[in-house]
Amino acid sequence: MVTNSTQHLPIIKVNADKSTAAMDVLALEEPLEIRLEHGDKDQRQVQNVSVTMRTPGHDGELATGFLFTEGIVKSLDDIEKASHCFIACAENKENVIQVSLAPGAVPNLQNTERNFYTTSSCGVCGKGSINAIRTVGSFDTQTTDNDTINAGVLYQIPGILRRHQRIFDDTGGLHASALFSAQGELLLLREDVGRHNALDKLIGAALNYNWLPLHQTVLLLSGRASFELIQKAVMAGINIVAAIGAPSSLAVQLAQEFNITLIGFLRNDHFNIYTAAHRVLMANYEPAGEENTIANENIQH
Amino acid sequence: MVTNSTQHLPIIKVNADKSTAAMDVLALEEPLEIRLEHGDKDQRQVQNVSVTMRTPGHDGELATGFLFTEGIVKSLDDIEKASHCFIACAENKENVIQVSLAPGAVPNLQNTERNFYTTSSCGVCGKGSINAIRTVGSFDTQTTDNDTINAGVLYQIPGILRRHQRIFDDTGGLHASALFSAQGELLLLREDVGRHNALDKLIGAALNYNWLPLHQTVLLLSGRASFELIQKAVMAGINIVAAIGAPSSLAVQLAQEFNITLIGFLRNDHFNIYTAAHRVLMANYEPAGEENTIANENIQH
Repeated sequence: MVTNSTQHLPIIKVNADKSTAAMDVLALEEPLEIRLEHGDKDQRQVQNVSVTMRTPGHDGELATGFLFTEGIVKSLDDIEKASHCFIACAENKENVIQVSLAPGAVPNLQNTERNFYTTSSCGVCGKGSINAIRTVGSFDTQTTDNDTINAGVLYQIPGILRRHQRIFDDTGGLHASALFSAQGELLLLREDVGRHNALDKLIGAALNYNWLPLHQTVLLLSGRASFELIQKAVMAGINIVAAIGAPSSLAVQLAQEFNITLIGFLRNDHFNIYTAAHRVLMANYEPAGEENTIANENIQH
Repeated sequence: MVTNSTQHLPIIKVNADKSTAAMDVLALEEPLEIRLEHGDKDQRQVQNVSVTMRTPGHDGELATGFLFTEGIVKSLDDIEKASHCFIACAENKENVIQVSLAPGAVPNLQNTERNFYTTSSCGVCGKGSINAIRTVGSFDTQTTDNDTINAGVLYQIPGILRRHQRIFDDTGGLHASALFSAQGELLLLREDVGRHNALDKLIGAALNYNWLPLHQTVLLLSGRASFELIQKAVMAGINIVAAIGAPSSLAVQLAQEFNITLIGFLRNDHFNIYTAAHRVLMANYEPAGEENTIANENIQH
């Protein structure tokens, strides 16, 4: 359910030097503080882990997804619950969420301070950042070469994403992450003003459904593919990532190292394959048709 | 000068189920660690302040721009120099930059830990984040209503930006921030895989040229306008911001509070005005023509 993710306000539209008063719809952006409660039963402690600017909605998924993709929490078993804290604030916003770990579950808080980037002995470089992920990720993407995808399915999924991007339709202002089956069925869709938040929400949701590792799926990114987004995909065991936009150099390097199929500039009639091209099947393909897309009400919004 | 900002690599282009080997150009992405050296002459200390994934190039500007827009460093006088550190690394990348403050200059390191978002007594909400900026920003944007811009200039600047976005042309993968005069002359342009980095580089460059506060200019953002980008504009005294994409709710609120003219969805024949519309002039406008754009070689790349 998408609620309270947009705001209406009066603006001035200018066109050919004529200005007109109009109403516009904006994507909501608010800070979210993520807190982590952990420790033994009689010695619980609460720590602030991160503050992110996000579009309200799916905050629990965002928080758990963030903790998981950053390697702070290892599995769903570690997590007891995620709930909003009601902090005194003039605006009365639900902008603090606390994730409580199961008694005895130990978070890896080393990662909160410096992120993955500099935890490697190599010093600060892309190669070092990639090696650091190797020590934290728990799913195998190296031996999943049988997870294939038809080129015809890839052509279809941007259109399916576009039709279901509700907040973007209203505001033109949101990033989206979507998860599709290999047959092109839309399984999950999350939107946010921050591209990393959209993916954390999606992976947090998949974690809650106990879907991980996300083998035999395709992750579709509405924009560009950066290192950070591929890092999160690695953590969730995703082995096919398709982006509407361009990938960065380090995104390609990371995909290469983890045998992830990385596709960029995906449109309805062409795309580029950057890494692990063996998973993309070109021939003997029959279009799936719209009936293969699950009905609107069944999509996990 | 833009150097080492792209990488060539072999890819597979797929089109109508036909695949072809091709070469592609990617935007480089590498981590940059920002270190701050400060203290009295006989008691210098070095602190790690941030690690950001950025496109190499203009690292000194990025670091000083970041320190300034985050409120850690107050003015150019505080900064002695910025230089790369050569850290042992197998890849031999220039990925650590150290900014040395003048002896006795005291950085506001409180801001490095939590950013602006939660330093307000209001708790965590957009209103609190806005109030926090009020206490740190040093330039006035409230009394600059005479800084106006013609609608006709606004129509032109996306095209000028597009023609000068060199790395984007090659890669399709970069955000840009550009600074124009009120007459539509391109003064500064910076590109990066991260939109906040592109703006930090631009403001860092302007700081080095001693151009701040950036009154009587227009900041053009190649994508969407988020809270964070408007926050950086406030810190640099920019009072007109135009974005090719959509603004978020909190970007609009922040612009409203600081009397910043915020324009969104800017195209060559229309745009939306979200705040402080009085600075946009509609009538008596004569197109500036291409001769008003400074020659290629003079633009501060």
